[in-house]
Amino acid sequence: MSTAPHRIDKLVVIGVGLIGGSFALAQKAAGCTGTVVGVGRGRMNLEEALNLGIIDRFVPLDGDWAAEVTGADFVLVAAPVAQYPALLRTMAPHLGPHTIVTDAGSTKQDAIAAARETLGAALPRFVPGHPIAGTEQSGAAAAFSTLYADRSVVLTPLPETDPLAIATVAAAWQTCGARVRTLDALAHDRIFAAVSHLPHLLAFALVDELAARPDAEDLFRFAASGFRDFTRIAASSPEMWRDIALANRAALLAEIAAFRAQLDRVAAMVETGDGAALEAVFAHARAARRGWASQRNAAGNPVPADGPREPQQD
Amino acid sequence: MSTAPHRIDKLVVIGVGLIGGSFALAQKAAGCTGTVVGVGRGRMNLEEALNLGIIDRFVPLDGDWAAEVTGADFVLVAAPVAQYPALLRTMAPHLGPHTIVTDAGSTKQDAIAAARETLGAALPRFVPGHPIAGTEQSGAAAAFSTLYADRSVVLTPLPETDPLAIATVAAAWQTCGARVRTLDALAHDRIFAAVSHLPHLLAFALVDELAARPDAEDLFRFAASGFRDFTRIAASSPEMWRDIALANRAALLAEIAAFRAQLDRVAAMVETGDGAALEAVFAHARAARRGWASQRNAAGNPVPADGPREPQQD
Repeated sequence: MSTAPHRIDKLVVIGVGLIGGSFALAQKAAGCTGTVVGVGRGRMNLEEALNLGIIDRFVPLDGDWAAEVTGADFVLVAAPVAQYPALLRTMAPHLGPHTIVTDAGSTKQDAIAAARETLGAALPRFVPGHPIAGTEQSGAAAAFSTLYADRSVVLTPLPETDPLAIATVAAAWQTCGARVRTLDALAHDRIFAAVSHLPHLLAFALVDELAARPDAEDLFRFAASGFRDFTRIAASSPEMWRDIALANRAALLAEIAAFRAQLDRVAAMVETGDGAALEAVFAHARAARRGWASQRNAAGNPVPADGPREPQQD
Repeated sequence: MSTAPHRIDKLVVIGVGLIGGSFALAQKAAGCTGTVVGVGRGRMNLEEALNLGIIDRFVPLDGDWAAEVTGADFVLVAAPVAQYPALLRTMAPHLGPHTIVTDAGSTKQDAIAAARETLGAALPRFVPGHPIAGTEQSGAAAAFSTLYADRSVVLTPLPETDPLAIATVAAAWQTCGARVRTLDALAHDRIFAAVSHLPHLLAFALVDELAARPDAEDLFRFAASGFRDFTRIAASSPEMWRDIALANRAALLAEIAAFRAQLDRVAAMVETGDGAALEAVFAHARAARRGWASQRNAAGNPVPADGPREPQQD
């Protein structure tokens, strides 16, 4: 994989958690940055980021952080999307004529709407982005420089986005080892509603419902590895997923409706004892799931494949 | 873990696949068996089991296998539950006064119904069982002697089951390294409908629906590790899960109804933009899921816990 040469003399990372911190570490590891300035809500987290060498100095969000944007050539917004309007509005007057702003939010239409409302003349240098990476950990202490190695980063540029800004952001992510892809923001939000936001909602909903039952203890006692994997994403951040569900409401509601119709269809097969139809649904799903897994493996995707002896609940 | 001493001079395994084959291998590894006779549909699989030393000889299901039951002290039925009535009816006249019969089916009320219909005087020596183990592989070649190490096996004895038969079956599973628990068959089927059968149905349903869309290729291209784990069980055996869905129909339909009501509730929160309610559902689910995972870890369960850097889709 070739890495485009690039240089960020002054990098400002807003939100020095797993995502922002790992980006900073990857830039430092590649020797591509001069100074990294961290901005964030929690002073303890910022101090930890400083001690870990993720950032070179910091300004808390309740301080005069916008002054740090002056002279920055690259600003990464890695904060919850709900905070974008306030963050972008505050930084807009301080953005230099060459400062590039990008973000790491999971929903893109709302990020773009916030940028349109607030950035004014700087809008063409805002490159919306979404790194498809993360762990269940959060905070600066969880950051590591190889988080993005061989992961995808989706950019959803606007019609007016400066091609040079896109190229710079793409190069920065490639420095992290990521594969950069572009999508229309509407398509992005629809795709992730289907393959990410809906599964998260279903997993949260199932665990919440089971945990509220009087016999929850019995249920969990006998739950095995199938349940473990199906519900792993139900341990994700409630705040982050609340924001995603609301930010991508229309697409998510469409996915819920489609899934509910499918569930009704399958429930009817169970109810009428239509074994042939059930088997056809299950076989179609298995073929698609296996095809997907083997394509991922063939593509050298380092996300671990299904293990040959990965225990399965039955 | 203490292992009760036991001895099976003649073991008959009906269905020498992953489940039956691993049981036989574990008994052999512990030096607890004399002769192991395999019975099954596929001659090639039986020959492979013989070559792998899982069994000492075999009789195909279309041969006079019932004669092998004569003189056996232990019969394990590890075939699809839908075949139980025919299998048990055929073996019933050949069961000796001390032959113990057990099974490995995922649903227990239907297994018991088949036994009641067919076994007559031998019914007290039928011990219904369900090893909570497996992999995505199948067939004798996938069997290994440690499949059941530290896994749970649930026994669902009848009121009339001979306590000595229960103790013998429990000892055999303990020899495999398993933890033996008992449940009422009705409770078993309800619990597994909730924590296993419903999740499988949801995963199959989701993948089937997404794979049928015109833009399925785009969806799968951007699906990441959250999707991978959520849908792993959608790669399971269509035939086996068809049979489970039909065998446990009543409990599964009740679970589908409960989940649909919960989904409607959560969808309404998304629709009305009720972020506080969504966050409460997600936080409750996360706390329950994390509590479950840490209890499993504390119990020394060897099913791998959520990895600290297990990649997560966002």
